[in-house]
Amino acid sequence: MTQKERLFLYDTTLRDGQQTQGVQFSTAEKKQIAQALDHLGIDYIEGGWPGANPTDSAFFDEAPKTRATMAAFGMTKRAGRSAANDDVLAAVLNAGTSAVCLVGKSHDYHVREALGISLEDNLENIRASIAHIVAEGREALFDAEHFFDGYRDNADYALACCRAALEAGARWIVLCDTNGGSQPSEVARVVRAVIKAGLPGDHLGIHTHNDTEQAVACSLAAVEAGVRQVQGTLNGLGERCGNANLTTLIPTLALKEPYKSQFETGVSADGLIDITRISRMLDEILNRVPNKQAAFVGASAFAHKAGLHASAILKDPSTYEHIDPAVVGNARIIPMSNQAGQSNLRKRLSDAGLEVAKGDPALVRILERVKRREADGYSYDTAQASFELLAREELDSSPSFFDVQRYKVTVERTKEQLSLSEAVVVVLVDGEKRLSVSESLDESGSDRGPVNALAQALRKDLGRYSAQLDDMRLVDFKVRITQGGTEAVTRVIIDSEDGAGYRWSTVGVSANIIDASFEALVDAIRWKLMRSSGVE
Amino acid sequence: MTQKERLFLYDTTLRDGQQTQGVQFSTAEKKQIAQALDHLGIDYIEGGWPGANPTDSAFFDEAPKTRATMAAFGMTKRAGRSAANDDVLAAVLNAGTSAVCLVGKSHDYHVREALGISLEDNLENIRASIAHIVAEGREALFDAEHFFDGYRDNADYALACCRAALEAGARWIVLCDTNGGSQPSEVARVVRAVIKAGLPGDHLGIHTHNDTEQAVACSLAAVEAGVRQVQGTLNGLGERCGNANLTTLIPTLALKEPYKSQFETGVSADGLIDITRISRMLDEILNRVPNKQAAFVGASAFAHKAGLHASAILKDPSTYEHIDPAVVGNARIIPMSNQAGQSNLRKRLSDAGLEVAKGDPALVRILERVKRREADGYSYDTAQASFELLAREELDSSPSFFDVQRYKVTVERTKEQLSLSEAVVVVLVDGEKRLSVSESLDESGSDRGPVNALAQALRKDLGRYSAQLDDMRLVDFKVRITQGGTEAVTRVIIDSEDGAGYRWSTVGVSANIIDASFEALVDAIRWKLMRSSGVE
Repeated sequence: MTQKERLFLYDTTLRDGQQTQGVQFSTAEKKQIAQALDHLGIDYIEGGWPGANPTDSAFFDEAPKTRATMAAFGMTKRAGRSAANDDVLAAVLNAGTSAVCLVGKSHDYHVREALGISLEDNLENIRASIAHIVAEGREALFDAEHFFDGYRDNADYALACCRAALEAGARWIVLCDTNGGSQPSEVARVVRAVIKAGLPGDHLGIHTHNDTEQAVACSLAAVEAGVRQVQGTLNGLGERCGNANLTTLIPTLALKEPYKSQFETGVSADGLIDITRISRMLDEILNRVPNKQAAFVGASAFAHKAGLHASAILKDPSTYEHIDPAVVGNARIIPMSNQAGQSNLRKRLSDAGLEVAKGDPALVRILERVKRREADGYSYDTAQASFELLAREELDSSPSFFDVQRYKVTVERTKEQLSLSEAVVVVLVDGEKRLSVSESLDESGSDRGPVNALAQALRKDLGRYSAQLDDMRLVDFKVRITQGGTEAVTRVIIDSEDGAGYRWSTVGVSANIIDASFEALVDAIRWKLMRSSGVE
Repeated sequence: MTQKERLFLYDTTLRDGQQTQGVQFSTAEKKQIAQALDHLGIDYIEGGWPGANPTDSAFFDEAPKTRATMAAFGMTKRAGRSAANDDVLAAVLNAGTSAVCLVGKSHDYHVREALGISLEDNLENIRASIAHIVAEGREALFDAEHFFDGYRDNADYALACCRAALEAGARWIVLCDTNGGSQPSEVARVVRAVIKAGLPGDHLGIHTHNDTEQAVACSLAAVEAGVRQVQGTLNGLGERCGNANLTTLIPTLALKEPYKSQFETGVSADGLIDITRISRMLDEILNRVPNKQAAFVGASAFAHKAGLHASAILKDPSTYEHIDPAVVGNARIIPMSNQAGQSNLRKRLSDAGLEVAKGDPALVRILERVKRREADGYSYDTAQASFELLAREELDSSPSFFDVQRYKVTVERTKEQLSLSEAVVVVLVDGEKRLSVSESLDESGSDRGPVNALAQALRKDLGRYSAQLDDMRLVDFKVRITQGGTEAVTRVIIDSEDGAGYRWSTVGVSANIIDASFEALVDAIRWKLMRSSGVE
């Protein structure tokens, strides 16, 4: 067995990832992400551009201690001053990171048009800046901006820029496809030519963008052609269509041939198993809906809807799965839709701890009811807790705990006063009628709205059950307008969490958004009570 | 100049795309999508699997007349009966399409394990099924399922399956990477080997999945290696992580080298310019939030946030754009964020018919206010009408029409009765106080919820303005939980439409969903009144 080659991973989520439209990390969020990257096993973490914005500077002041090398980003010195006297460069060095990555021009057109300086002056700026970084005892990286476009127009000059950086002591020369338009076959061809021209592959990195949906493929093509550092971001965040997606690249390099046998990275099997969780954590920080179809980590990445696929998967998962989802911390899903048959249903019930015999007539009833409700606009793909309650009803194993008699919710607002929500809920518990009323004010006295008021009134007095709800809280609330029969209806999904961090999802549907929310709330509470009372 | 080679595009949005978790098209939606695909210039439209589900069968009964070849999907006949006596195959033929695509096994493991038949029997099933299709006068396609995995395990058998179909008269043999795990370099290598083994490239197609985010790259690798048909779906819909994304492949083939010079497809420049619109239309049908970072068609695909990029773009767009966004019907965005300057703002105001002089102090006020509101959770990317109202306020050119004094909305429901919503709104119009109350019942007497009740009460009596609102209606209502300052808040976007079909979008933000909705409603009505009164 031959020794594997080391491939280095360089993350720029905190810098290029922040160029995503709508993304702006706080310093605390940057620290949280840096820690996750370090846990994953990334080699370099680019924390931002110190001096360019206050958050980036603050992050470096408070940067967590990491096994990974922390890198600050900046640009080569401007013409007409020395590297030591360039204040932009000084701010970058002041961040005190052990690595510094400087972007510089490598496309002659940009040197002339954007910088308005001579080609030789640009080479000198690269040389002097990198030499300065190295003299300060830092590991130097050079991001060759627009390298592939530049190589197409003037290969000799693009190469000269890289050589200038290398000769000045740069550890890495990173070939950037800044505009994201290069194709994998071209990237491979150019990288091979660069290596042939004397730049060693183990000093080359690749930085690609997803403008033709091929940032991952371009990165891998560059690796096959000889580069030994890959730059990217978590979830493919980044300017325009994003950067190369490390959340895809990491499992691909670890699990797929020819990479698996040829390379090793700093990501161990223990890191890999956390990649789904880290991807979702980033979405949570950004308050984004996770991309269900994301490779490896998406909720649908191992979901099998087609009937033929679903039945084969039950025999042997490898028939329709290219890897074992558990390896990346993800899970197989066989959704309950038209194509799903009784065997899938039994599998899903068994996941919920309900063992039902083959041929049990309740199976047909459950399938029919799911189908009918899905036609009304319900969706049980994610609302596993509501599915479980529905199934238990048909299996006669579901206590009802409480019975809602009526509710009423009011929202009012005047010109002088902010909104105020009030909810009244009347329930029967153990035959006894209980009326509860709640406003929906948070600690600061601000109204949190009618759904919150209903949730508080509903759980306020459920007799002997109330104590079991103490550690439960609503963590997410999703609303979708969908089709229920011939009418547009509102589907509400509510995510709840208990004190141990366990989450469950419930669904409600109605033309009335409040009514749909109430239905999901009732399911959320019922499910919690069922779990707490140890119903099996 | 050499003649370009013809590359054929085969769309399976209506069949494989429907395997996406959560996607279920109605017959009417299928017709609408088929017409859009035809308009785009797709060569083949796979409409579904007739007989497998009622919607697919209904679609073929009512299929629109298209220039594109309509294809029905099915599977090769089962063992132990003749092709003519296979009822599944009969249902596929009964759809009456001019092309029929049959999937069959080409991986020996699946033949033995999933089908449980001999390798020779499977070859016979392929041969007999394709021959039957051809004898019925149809164009036959063979989808070689699991081809790349099969080739890896038993190349001779995988090739034998393809040869059986070709010799039986199949026009196309489609090499499928069913599990989506093959890498582009492997796909290229195998396709070259297949062609070398005697299967002609102009009879080969490629069908890939996005499980390592490389479906587009695998398709292009196959094209470079010699296949002449590409299968995919709009927006990359499809089982698990989706199919190859035609919305990316079409512009890449048309605009990027080496494809642009070598190939032509049925998509003209006129079709290409509509691809962004068609992509958004599909999202609208599915009620999905369009992927902002989608290549070519995403709202962020040509958004330039980085300060250095934005200023260079204003000098010469090609500095940070790999293609001209207008070619694919998309537009450049320089977001109204930190980096956005006054010239971008003037451009956006001018789009709204507001010509503001350079250096007008209102520009600074508008920028500041947009920034502050975006920090509170508002978003003006789509809510152009709310942006316009905000700008007009700062420009002193906005009449207020009416003044809301207070509102109150109630939702109640009892065990015996369905929900009922009631809204009271008090407004001042021309100094006169007007109280209105509305329920929210549709023609069938069903409650449509509190937002609807508020909308009705608000417009019920606005004095001399009421008549101008007669042709206005709410057409969409989107809710997102987002971040406003340090708290989670609800952002509501309301789309309204007038009698002429003109649409406008407004935004409201609050921790209270009703209050956020009310704010968006007020903006929607104000904007309509402003337009009706001819304010310029």
